[in-house]
Amino acid sequence: MSGVEEGAPIQLAEMGSFHVGGRTVQITGKPIREVQFWPGDMPIKVDPNGTHQVEQMYVQYFIPAKPRGACPLLLWHGGGLTGVTWETTPDGREGWVNWFLRQGWAVYNSDAVERGRSGWAMFPDIFAGEPVFLPNANPYERHRIGAGPGSYDDDPAKRRVWAGNLFPTEAYEAFSRQFAPRFLSTDAAVVAAYTALLDKLDPAVVIAHSQGGQFAIRAAQARPHKVRALVLVETAGAPPPETAAVLRDVPILAVYGDFIDKDPRWPRIRTIGEAFLAAHTAAGGVTTILDLPARGIPGNSHMLMMDRNNGEVAVLVNDWLASIGLYS
Amino acid sequence: MSGVEEGAPIQLAEMGSFHVGGRTVQITGKPIREVQFWPGDMPIKVDPNGTHQVEQMYVQYFIPAKPRGACPLLLWHGGGLTGVTWETTPDGREGWVNWFLRQGWAVYNSDAVERGRSGWAMFPDIFAGEPVFLPNANPYERHRIGAGPGSYDDDPAKRRVWAGNLFPTEAYEAFSRQFAPRFLSTDAAVVAAYTALLDKLDPAVVIAHSQGGQFAIRAAQARPHKVRALVLVETAGAPPPETAAVLRDVPILAVYGDFIDKDPRWPRIRTIGEAFLAAHTAAGGVTTILDLPARGIPGNSHMLMMDRNNGEVAVLVNDWLASIGLYS
Repeated sequence: MSGVEEGAPIQLAEMGSFHVGGRTVQITGKPIREVQFWPGDMPIKVDPNGTHQVEQMYVQYFIPAKPRGACPLLLWHGGGLTGVTWETTPDGREGWVNWFLRQGWAVYNSDAVERGRSGWAMFPDIFAGEPVFLPNANPYERHRIGAGPGSYDDDPAKRRVWAGNLFPTEAYEAFSRQFAPRFLSTDAAVVAAYTALLDKLDPAVVIAHSQGGQFAIRAAQARPHKVRALVLVETAGAPPPETAAVLRDVPILAVYGDFIDKDPRWPRIRTIGEAFLAAHTAAGGVTTILDLPARGIPGNSHMLMMDRNNGEVAVLVNDWLASIGLYS
Repeated sequence: MSGVEEGAPIQLAEMGSFHVGGRTVQITGKPIREVQFWPGDMPIKVDPNGTHQVEQMYVQYFIPAKPRGACPLLLWHGGGLTGVTWETTPDGREGWVNWFLRQGWAVYNSDAVERGRSGWAMFPDIFAGEPVFLPNANPYERHRIGAGPGSYDDDPAKRRVWAGNLFPTEAYEAFSRQFAPRFLSTDAAVVAAYTALLDKLDPAVVIAHSQGGQFAIRAAQARPHKVRALVLVETAGAPPPETAAVLRDVPILAVYGDFIDKDPRWPRIRTIGEAFLAAHTAAGGVTTILDLPARGIPGNSHMLMMDRNNGEVAVLVNDWLASIGLYS
């Protein structure tokens, strides 16, 4: 763990939370609803019409007593999940919030708009369409935790994994408790709130995972001078390569785990990410691709911040941040 | 702040999070949905049928390096809200998570089932009925932040408060960003998850607010030997008084703020709580009622953990915990 001992005291100068971004909407024409809020309460009339706050984003922060990072470090989770991604791993080890905090980074961990403590808005009035609720099988088979389609079974003894997989599969049920309903219509609102966060913390380093990767690229494109570096952990999607040049002054580290070639979807997802990265390089950007198996580190799932070697991967990310002058 | 200086470093032995409780359900008979998870992604077929995890509860914990509390201290928020209630106040001061942590309590801050990072389940399949979405006006007028019904206006300059109100009304919009959709059908699931938390942390002190108060009483009634004390901060509702005796060995502190007699609903809510407290006393229980205005502390709203004197109220709670031997 690069000299930082799990279990040693964490010294904080400050910790807290806030909501950022969002907008006020007017709801009109809804019927007044008679509501009994709790057993024994007087039923009261609740008028849902009027102004509502929507599309704000929750951010929790931890400021170390002895900072070593050059600026705040922002953790942006992936689709159908929340900031819990970066906290304690499903099997109870320290996650990347603790790891980077112990290294001396000021860590800002957020829940994307629509999820977790950011709240969600009525649909279809504010959010178009219904959210997706994933059964336990889906992320197991789609996130290279198990061995692809058909590898999940409700009986843990019958689940299949690829040899050497480092996800703590014995704790899969603790991971599936983290799933959040996923709306498919909120991307613009998500990016707007992330952009508002960059405006607030200017400048910042962003570590983004999966769906969060494309949000990070889009927010950075909106505020290229407010992002000191992007770390894209298996980004799922990227804007068109011809838009990459605006990020030429933003160094990018792209991290990929194992088993990508065994999966039906991941080769294409990686190709989309790497097309953007190639355009970033061609535009004069500093682009580093950290292919973990090629680096002699096999076994990582898509959820590599939870994998058994999550500290080892974090060291490589931190070393890269140090190599571009953002950590000392 | 009772010798604890806001702004001094916080020393943690440990911090992290977990989900507790919940159950597995089988979803069947739903159509397979074609989903494009992000722009450019291959549309994939998502089968929502199968096992889902539902009704789990998110808990975040902070363990101080120098513990002084006799056991974990659990913070349970009120209706339509999440654990954010106890974090930074809307106007940016430290909340009760920080306050009790600085005093040496191991603090466990949770999001009730259905809210925040606990996630929510499909309705009407799992949760019966639609959630309530509150407009900005509602909590302002109902939580004794403003001066009762009709006191809210979208124009902050036109809002009315009772003289001396200590809620940081200039930051009301930061509070309304914390609202969470509220289901009316999930009480049993909420109590089940809180009970699972008591089983895990046994024994514990619970500080519960508003709707959380009746959940705390019900969970404590299910596990009376696992609760060392209950602090009911303006409990909204309580079980029938004839069920109070099971808590005879659990000391209860009930805290009430100001302006209750000016409000159309609060006198009755208070009467319900005090009927339970009287039965608790009659059964031989240690019951303390902390009526803040009677104690010479006027001005508290229903959200007194956010009010300008939130530290002053916390001192009184902590002093009571010390008086019954739970803090040294």
